[in-house]
Amino acid sequence: MSTAEIDQLARLLAKLPGLGARSSRRAVLALLKRRETLGEPLVRALREAFDKVRACGVCGNLDSIDPCGICASQRRDRQTILVCEEVEDLWAMERAQSYGGLYHVLGGKLSAIDAVGPEDLGIDRLMARIQADDVKEVILALGATVDGQTTAHYIAERLAGLAVNVSRLGHGVPVGGELNYLDEGTLQAALRARQKLTL
Amino acid sequence: MSTAEIDQLARLLAKLPGLGARSSRRAVLALLKRRETLGEPLVRALREAFDKVRACGVCGNLDSIDPCGICASQRRDRQTILVCEEVEDLWAMERAQSYGGLYHVLGGKLSAIDAVGPEDLGIDRLMARIQADDVKEVILALGATVDGQTTAHYIAERLAGLAVNVSRLGHGVPVGGELNYLDEGTLQAALRARQKLTL
Ligand SMILES: [Zn+2]
Ligand SMILES: [Zn+2]
Repeated sequence: MSTAEIDQLARLLAKLPGLGARSSRRAVLALLKRRETLGEPLVRALREAFDKVRACGVCGNLDSIDPCGICASQRRDRQTILVCEEVEDLWAMERAQSYGGLYHVLGGKLSAIDAVGPEDLGIDRLMARIQADDVKEVILALGATVDGQTTAHYIAERLAGLAVNVSRLGHGVPVGGELNYLDEGTLQAALRARQKLTL
Repeated sequence: MSTAEIDQLARLLAKLPGLGARSSRRAVLALLKRRETLGEPLVRALREAFDKVRACGVCGNLDSIDPCGICASQRRDRQTILVCEEVEDLWAMERAQSYGGLYHVLGGKLSAIDAVGPEDLGIDRLMARIQADDVKEVILALGATVDGQTTAHYIAERLAGLAVNVSRLGHGVPVGGELNYLDEGTLQAALRARQKLTL
């Protein structure tokens, strides 16, 4: 129905989370109609982001500096590490503005079905970091899904021999829910109500 | 919370129809994580579309050729023109696969509030086209909104002196609804049930 260039652009936009087939075609039109104010700036912003943004070698956060701004900050509590699945989760915690420690982004969770093991999540690197940096508390902020809780349990077992408090986010995370869809208030409550993890 | 490059990219993506503030941040992460398979191809597709896609000088459709593929086709009924507000509407009609004539995209509708007059919509160009090409039927496929119906009425009045049948889409377009949100079946029914417009 439309030209190959438009179809290809719509097909790629439809792969973005939140955009379906129809909304991606509307997005193409918006980009073509507002080429100077939206389309061209978007191309430049994509180029900039691809050129500059990298995963932090320490925590896995995305930033234009490595170590990232959080890892490099002297104002953060360096003896607490919050472990989460994805960068989205780190961003969600930062928006909640109740946490002042460091992070560790796993980049996924243990999954038998998807064949994701501890080595894929860099859990050895997390262990090394905890021991080297004299960390006192590890908060396991993983999703309340089966895989998320399996991952939390696995990490808690690995930490059992170390002199470190291990907690999980408290009441507030809905069962089966993903962290990054939660509003700030729920995340604040969940952080305040975090509980010591017992095996 | 995050780096300037990420914020700028998320800010632009949030301007696309269908993407809010949170989904635009998720889209940024998808683009960065899947840079090779999604991010870079998207930049190339945007560049291609900006380089090649233009508005058709005859009907206002978007295509990489001018006149567009529809205007240039010898398989379309060249004595029927469907007048619609936006390119989205033309695409929606093509998806419905019940219409084989030509189009005329106004690029908007008459609006006192937005100060859109007949000259902004190129209605003189539509009149010239109808007279020059010996058009037999004009289908006014405008939204069932106040401005859409005002525009239809204005065009019908301008066409009153010409030997051309003027119709509007029939039952099926919900009152107050925009064309491009309708499913294919509703558009097919609306086209079949189109009615001769009486002033
Ligand atoms: Zn970092
Ligand atoms: Zn055309």
